[in-house]
Amino acid sequence: MRPHRPAASRSRIPPRELLRRAAQIRLLLLDVDGVLTDGRLFYGPEGEERVAFDVKDGHGIVLLRDHIEVGVISGRAGRAARPRLEELRVRHLLLGERDKLAAYGRLAALGFADAEVAYMGDDVNDLPLLLRVGLSACPADALPEVRARVHFCAGAAGGRGAVRELCDLLLRARGLP
Amino acid sequence: MRPHRPAASRSRIPPRELLRRAAQIRLLLLDVDGVLTDGRLFYGPEGEERVAFDVKDGHGIVLLRDHIEVGVISGRAGRAARPRLEELRVRHLLLGERDKLAAYGRLAALGFADAEVAYMGDDVNDLPLLLRVGLSACPADALPEVRARVHFCAGAAGGRGAVRELCDLLLRARGLP
Amino acid sequence: MRPHRPAASRSRIPPRELLRRAAQIRLLLLDVDGVLTDGRLFYGPEGEERVAFDVKDGHGIVLLRDHIEVGVISGRAGRAARPRLEELRVRHLLLGERDKLAAYGRLAALGFADAEVAYMGDDVNDLPLLLRVGLSACPADALPEVRARVHFCAGAAGGRGAVRELCDLLLRARGLP
Amino acid sequence: MRPHRPAASRSRIPPRELLRRAAQIRLLLLDVDGVLTDGRLFYGPEGEERVAFDVKDGHGIVLLRDHIEVGVISGRAGRAARPRLEELRVRHLLLGERDKLAAYGRLAALGFADAEVAYMGDDVNDLPLLLRVGLSACPADALPEVRARVHFCAGAAGGRGAVRELCDLLLRARGLP
Repeated sequence: MRPHRPAASRSRIPPRELLRRAAQIRLLLLDVDGVLTDGRLFYGPEGEERVAFDVKDGHGIVLLRDHIEVGVISGRAGRAARPRLEELRVRHLLLGERDKLAAYGRLAALGFADAEVAYMGDDVNDLPLLLRVGLSACPADALPEVRARVHFCAGAAGGRGAVRELCDLLLRARGLP
Repeated sequence: MRPHRPAASRSRIPPRELLRRAAQIRLLLLDVDGVLTDGRLFYGPEGEERVAFDVKDGHGIVLLRDHIEVGVISGRAGRAARPRLEELRVRHLLLGERDKLAAYGRLAALGFADAEVAYMGDDVNDLPLLLRVGLSACPADALPEVRARVHFCAGAAGGRGAVRELCDLLLRARGLP
Repeated sequence: MRPHRPAASRSRIPPRELLRRAAQIRLLLLDVDGVLTDGRLFYGPEGEERVAFDVKDGHGIVLLRDHIEVGVISGRAGRAARPRLEELRVRHLLLGERDKLAAYGRLAALGFADAEVAYMGDDVNDLPLLLRVGLSACPADALPEVRARVHFCAGAAGGRGAVRELCDLLLRARGLP
Repeated sequence: MRPHRPAASRSRIPPRELLRRAAQIRLLLLDVDGVLTDGRLFYGPEGEERVAFDVKDGHGIVLLRDHIEVGVISGRAGRAARPRLEELRVRHLLLGERDKLAAYGRLAALGFADAEVAYMGDDVNDLPLLLRVGLSACPADALPEVRARVHFCAGAAGGRGAVRELCDLLLRARGLP
């Protein structure tokens, strides 16, 4: 019977400016490990890999995906993550991408301006992309270097509701319930 | 060696009124993901899914099921959850039900009045049913919109004792040990 | 990068009396779910079950088992737990025992007096046995009814170091390092 | 939606001395269970074992391994851990080593002086090696006896970022980003 105290999210910019940026977003990009999952990588003797998603995050994506395009950019191949991403009908799956900015460049064909893109990442290799998009976000347990530089830092950890908070922010900014 | 501090449950109504409502319950309905489980969905490369239940919650259901009917209503198909639910001999399994109020309607044949039903849910899609039953409850880590509107908010998180607290409340209200 | 603050154990009896009781113990009995494991029961679609032990608890048992007999009494069949218990060479495996006091009775042949037995349990069905043995203990996240009645309540939760604290107490009481 | 509060690391020696020691390190040795993993050992009925690594820790090793040699010394056979360690290209795998000091002795052929070696461990059987190397470290949830005697105690728990903090310290000490 574990204790639980909800934590507050934190914004480095005024709430009004945060909502203004959020209202412009038409493409949401998410890192996988540590953002959509809690960063744990489960391994067995045969190298079988498992990762853990959160049902509330998934529900946030379901609520959002009719209004905003959703994609993921992950540095790892994500064999274990793919089934859940397909289940959530995440349209753009960029997996095994060491250089996230380069991967992002390949999405240029979609025709979104940087200001219309939101990205949530948790590690230093996410910084180049975080510094480029219109709305940058991270989970509560992101690296300190990341937490210090994004627009929006969720109150929940990765794989434990951080993505849901960002989805709810994007919906609220559009006046959706 | 993790720290542990038990958290207190919270009731939006006076304790006496809570016990009065609890004493009338003859059917306990539970959400699965985030309520009977901790909301984590484990995935492997073949799409194998796993979920995690809590042994104390299970014990609560065992203590309760001779006195009160127990059922679950889940929005997901719950392939991974079903074996545990059958092990706990949960009588009413409504799985893959997007519209929980509609699923609840199909239980009308059981002949229970709304005031005789308790429901514990954790997300916004649980609200219509939570607002209808005689006793509404949620785990400590439910969405804020849910926490703000239920009669009873457990001190423990989903899949970590929240269901047990509700079971114990229902037993206590009936004067059972 | 999770926060961590070690929590202190708590004794309902004076430290001196606790050590006196601990020094007499020749048989350590442990519950499995919620004591040797963190109480989570992982299930997959085929009913495959998994449980999670803690490496530090295991090390405690290894340090202890040359000096004190070790056994487990669990209410569940413990198919998933058995391999780890055998690996730790736990000598007395009483699994699937609903009535723990009855199971304890069957250990009478070992010839230990109640005062020479320690038991750690976490739920109300552990109380009869806890109230009988010479040293009763529980993890930090045991049910409140249990925490209120045992001699020693660990600072760590079940499956996260609670058993290790008890092992260390028993070793210390015997003047072992 | 779990709360999260980052915890600070702690050094028993002045920061300047810590950096001086860190700057000399040419070989990083790590314990596995409780250091590279969160100490949980998952078991199924067939004895299948799983362990959980953290993606941020892995990234730290990737950032470090071009500058400093990396190895692990584990008391257990580590069947489940091996695939991840190979994926991270950890060069020196000393698994199933009860006597860690003896295992360390076999690395003498590498030609590193004790002052050029860092070791992170979490339990009492790690102490002899921790007391020998130039830089000793532990996760936040190490045994108290260990926390009291190492140079650097991470703010994060084992398998939840402790190794990453040590990697970042070693990189910083070398003036690497």
